[in-house]
Amino acid sequence: MFNHKDGVNAVRFLGVDAINKANSGHPGIVLGAAPMAYSLFVNELRINPKNSSWFDRDRFILSAGHGSALLYAINHLSGYDISLDDLKNFRQVGNTPGHPEYGYTDGVETTSGPLGQGISNAVGMAIAESHLAARFNKPNFDVINHYTYVICGDGDLQEGVALEACSLAGHLGLNKLIVLWDSNDIQLDGPTSLATSDDVAMKFKSMNWHYQLVEDGEDLEGVHKAILNAKAALDKPSLIEVKTVIGRGVSYEGTAKTHGSPIGDKERTHAAEKLGWNYAPFEVPAHVYELFNKKVTNRGEILNQEHNHLLSEYEKEYPELHKELMQFLNGKVKLNYKKYQKLIAKSKDATRNVSGIVLNQLSKENKNIIGGSADLTGSTKAKGADGDFTNENRLGRNINYGVREHAMAAINNGIALHGGLKVFAGAFFVFSDYCKPSIRLSALMGLPVTYVFTHDTVAVGEDGPTHQPIEQLVGLRAIPGLNVLRPADANETIASWKLAIESENVPTVLVLTRQNVTNLPGTNYDGVKRGAYVVSPEKERVDGVLLAAGSEVELAVEAQKSLRRRGIDVRVVSMPSHYLFSKQNAKYKESVLPNVPTLAIEAGSSMSWYEYTLHVMSIDSFGVSCPGNQAMEHFKFTSKEVVKRFLKIVK
Amino acid sequence: MFNHKDGVNAVRFLGVDAINKANSGHPGIVLGAAPMAYSLFVNELRINPKNSSWFDRDRFILSAGHGSALLYAINHLSGYDISLDDLKNFRQVGNTPGHPEYGYTDGVETTSGPLGQGISNAVGMAIAESHLAARFNKPNFDVINHYTYVICGDGDLQEGVALEACSLAGHLGLNKLIVLWDSNDIQLDGPTSLATSDDVAMKFKSMNWHYQLVEDGEDLEGVHKAILNAKAALDKPSLIEVKTVIGRGVSYEGTAKTHGSPIGDKERTHAAEKLGWNYAPFEVPAHVYELFNKKVTNRGEILNQEHNHLLSEYEKEYPELHKELMQFLNGKVKLNYKKYQKLIAKSKDATRNVSGIVLNQLSKENKNIIGGSADLTGSTKAKGADGDFTNENRLGRNINYGVREHAMAAINNGIALHGGLKVFAGAFFVFSDYCKPSIRLSALMGLPVTYVFTHDTVAVGEDGPTHQPIEQLVGLRAIPGLNVLRPADANETIASWKLAIESENVPTVLVLTRQNVTNLPGTNYDGVKRGAYVVSPEKERVDGVLLAAGSEVELAVEAQKSLRRRGIDVRVVSMPSHYLFSKQNAKYKESVLPNVPTLAIEAGSSMSWYEYTLHVMSIDSFGVSCPGNQAMEHFKFTSKEVVKRFLKIVK
Repeated sequence: MFNHKDGVNAVRFLGVDAINKANSGHPGIVLGAAPMAYSLFVNELRINPKNSSWFDRDRFILSAGHGSALLYAINHLSGYDISLDDLKNFRQVGNTPGHPEYGYTDGVETTSGPLGQGISNAVGMAIAESHLAARFNKPNFDVINHYTYVICGDGDLQEGVALEACSLAGHLGLNKLIVLWDSNDIQLDGPTSLATSDDVAMKFKSMNWHYQLVEDGEDLEGVHKAILNAKAALDKPSLIEVKTVIGRGVSYEGTAKTHGSPIGDKERTHAAEKLGWNYAPFEVPAHVYELFNKKVTNRGEILNQEHNHLLSEYEKEYPELHKELMQFLNGKVKLNYKKYQKLIAKSKDATRNVSGIVLNQLSKENKNIIGGSADLTGSTKAKGADGDFTNENRLGRNINYGVREHAMAAINNGIALHGGLKVFAGAFFVFSDYCKPSIRLSALMGLPVTYVFTHDTVAVGEDGPTHQPIEQLVGLRAIPGLNVLRPADANETIASWKLAIESENVPTVLVLTRQNVTNLPGTNYDGVKRGAYVVSPEKERVDGVLLAAGSEVELAVEAQKSLRRRGIDVRVVSMPSHYLFSKQNAKYKESVLPNVPTLAIEAGSSMSWYEYTLHVMSIDSFGVSCPGNQAMEHFKFTSKEVVKRFLKIVK
Repeated sequence: MFNHKDGVNAVRFLGVDAINKANSGHPGIVLGAAPMAYSLFVNELRINPKNSSWFDRDRFILSAGHGSALLYAINHLSGYDISLDDLKNFRQVGNTPGHPEYGYTDGVETTSGPLGQGISNAVGMAIAESHLAARFNKPNFDVINHYTYVICGDGDLQEGVALEACSLAGHLGLNKLIVLWDSNDIQLDGPTSLATSDDVAMKFKSMNWHYQLVEDGEDLEGVHKAILNAKAALDKPSLIEVKTVIGRGVSYEGTAKTHGSPIGDKERTHAAEKLGWNYAPFEVPAHVYELFNKKVTNRGEILNQEHNHLLSEYEKEYPELHKELMQFLNGKVKLNYKKYQKLIAKSKDATRNVSGIVLNQLSKENKNIIGGSADLTGSTKAKGADGDFTNENRLGRNINYGVREHAMAAINNGIALHGGLKVFAGAFFVFSDYCKPSIRLSALMGLPVTYVFTHDTVAVGEDGPTHQPIEQLVGLRAIPGLNVLRPADANETIASWKLAIESENVPTVLVLTRQNVTNLPGTNYDGVKRGAYVVSPEKERVDGVLLAAGSEVELAVEAQKSLRRRGIDVRVVSMPSHYLFSKQNAKYKESVLPNVPTLAIEAGSSMSWYEYTLHVMSIDSFGVSCPGNQAMEHFKFTSKEVVKRFLKIVK
């Protein structure tokens, strides 16, 4: 009845044709993995391409993002908003970029391409699904009930981030995560045997995964059966190894040469003949569209309608829960700044502690907040509420990530991508390095995730240079679209959390102290939200500016007093966010930082300050192991030195 | 005959006493893992503490670097140059920092603390040992013949970098790598069961490791037997799981509370009583010193003497090989700039290609160069000579890292730490993010490793934003002690390689183009080594400076001509290395960059240029997927735009 051969070939050749036209791309995976993708889409995938934001859809992640042409081809056929012209425009400016880019293309669930990220995002999506299901489902009302599917490649499974994430997925028993592994024994440099001898099946079993092998990747029924078996494995995530031939159909199929180079017209003809595809480039016969229409598009529309019906019944039966669910999906959270200020009892505290207090309260008020730390909960105070999220307690909102910083960040991206939850992640600031590839993706995708990074300078103390951040602030401030907030005190910490939790499409990094800092009278939300502002004004005239961030603002305020005693009238400007300040208009910027002698003060790299002044008091070498206050003194971070340095500028 | 109980307790209590005195540190591992460390040192470890740089010593890595007090204590007892006073000065400025720091403390083989790094370094050391052994050993002359031992914790085995490295170690069959796993079921946040359910034994077996369990971590003989078994496993690296009790001896032993807080005097007394240690803080009875003297120090001296003898016989029998070995250990490599220039035939080429040509020639001339790429050999041209390094071909100098960027960097650190080899690693520049934690450690340790990062700007093209670096230059330039070199053309690429390969204690990052760039007449080694220099001088007067790096230098030279036609006389300065330029004196700096209107031009973040000028032509947003030249135009990286921007400055 259905011509599945043509269905599969349509996916293959649309992909290959797009790559040929672009003269750029990765045909190997398109030709090899098209059958498994096809089987998944046609038989199982619960999506409504006409309503791609349907929240109870299955998530499908192409972790091997270089196979974007495969994804665009099958999404086009499935009825997503990707036209044939879009496919012809592959890898040009438009909605069919070289790797899948979240927010650019209908039906693309995440930005993938940096290997290991997509599969780790998928773990986050599966966590979100199971948590939301536990919260909202009622007998006969499984309003949250969908799977997360991944197609990954050999490379994905070599990446540390994926291995971390998969270990956690097994630990958490995320049974609705199903990974199809395009196992073709080839990677860019040649056979995978050049670089790995892992018994992957055993490896995944050791991580509490359900494993299956489909010996022939062309066997649509075999793939489908394996998916059904995976669904039946009720306590484990599933890895389905599907043996495929990379570049199936071309004369050099099964070789690394097919991985990343267009096959060209001649080989296209060869492959079309071999695989039995009788259509010109970009030609899709009507019966294939019909097939996808019936088996994917229409089926999806019906599933969506059924779910809508279920949801309206649910609304009648459980009006409060329904309302809460809608609030969760809406995703808006508010923080009442003044109210939160009242939670702060101490006049002096570490900003990590203040952050912990704020997060506790936020979590109480907002059941949609979830997150955790990478085995540093006690240190970062970044702990979720309602107990640990476990196999037995899906309602827990604290995720114990273990010592898996990178996966934590990638998983949090996945939770944010899933929708319905606000997510945070905690680690020592220096270990933001481990998270960097995923933080970049948070920014690239515009995901409103919050990173809680504590122990932010050499004031970390005894743990020494490996644990004392220096260049991390610069590295993160340079990421486009990332709001790095380094609050000076409790007020600024509350303000920073307000910006973080209310953010809708900007990720936030909170950079917090280990050590106590004094609450300053001049700090406030209105200032923080503009990135920089005067926290301690001049008396009469502006002889200069002391410009600082974080714990160094207090130092600047002390120095201001000393300078005043010497007849020098400076103002202190706190700049918690370079990102936000850069968005202010010239007038505001000038009003805060007039053209007067300015000394920037930060116990980290100088580089991010030169935009504002050439006079920077900084630390451009690695730290030192000794008590934190001594470390600060070792690097001359004293108010006396600030005075000295400022006097040098104005003399 | 020997009082092993006192021996073990001496390690334990010296460690605990140091932590108590510092009122900071991690006693849990010290109390729990002392027996296994003791058994290793006393029974097996081939070291000569009186000659800690003996090249055929066993390497011992405390990957769980927070246990530094354990390492210092046992190194003190073993006769390394660490005094009791040093132990009393634990975690203060000096030679006993909070985490082991390479170069600071006698007997410390690597800087550890960021989890997963030490064990990955160890994989590199084992690679180096097996490669050098294959090259230099002859029948009856095993001049290179030592083991690499690791003590790691639960956290180490959760880190992705370690999982990557261990997978490669198993693939390569590094049988002389022996890992003792301090398996105490506790991590910082509590029981490991909070975060993992891995069957670690099965996991390591799946990665081709030999696995053993020692059920009682106090069983010195059991540990020793397991080590002997591990040595007998001739084709696999070994994991020995040693079950221990964290914080052994304190009243709350076996809990996370013992992990990172000093136990204090009262619990010290409690533990001493329980474990049978009758000595005051920092008191070590003579018989313990005697024990270590006999079983470690003297034994080591004899082994070293025997090896010296073997080596002098070897010199007689194989004078050429001996000479080569000494050259390897000396580590000096020279690159003849003029000679290498002759290798360049094209007037226009991608700097990655030039780099490949240079590396090929270097590898021919210097058999001590080894390295490889993370499954991007064809793209990065960073390939080692003499075939692949494999289990069967230990002489191969190309390491196929697979898609394991992070482990690649950490392993390269290990190879460099081992000594005897010059090492490089290749990946796409954007994936330097994955390597960042280990690059930081290259810099912190001052290791002369070379990173070959190609595809350096949005000119990467079709692969799009995930593959187009933006902020990576800034992030790396901010790392203290790291020489980031972004050459403009072939000459500068050769010069950069010369600096990299001749470096003795500075790591180098080479940032190279995917696309062709023109060889410029003004580029040269003398300029590159000073970080910045005039590549195309003004005609008569300096109306301004166009300051650029990498592929943008060519753009600046084009713009210079246009400006000249408009009567504006600018010079073009190439700045391949901010790091090297920062080391020049003020006079030189001013001679290159006089106080005139200056436009900096780089197709990446602006942040690293503000130190030199506020006028920066940069890309401070994410990239775009389209052909590379179009991407550059999309971001207005054209000579026309350079002219326009410069005119704005001077008008």
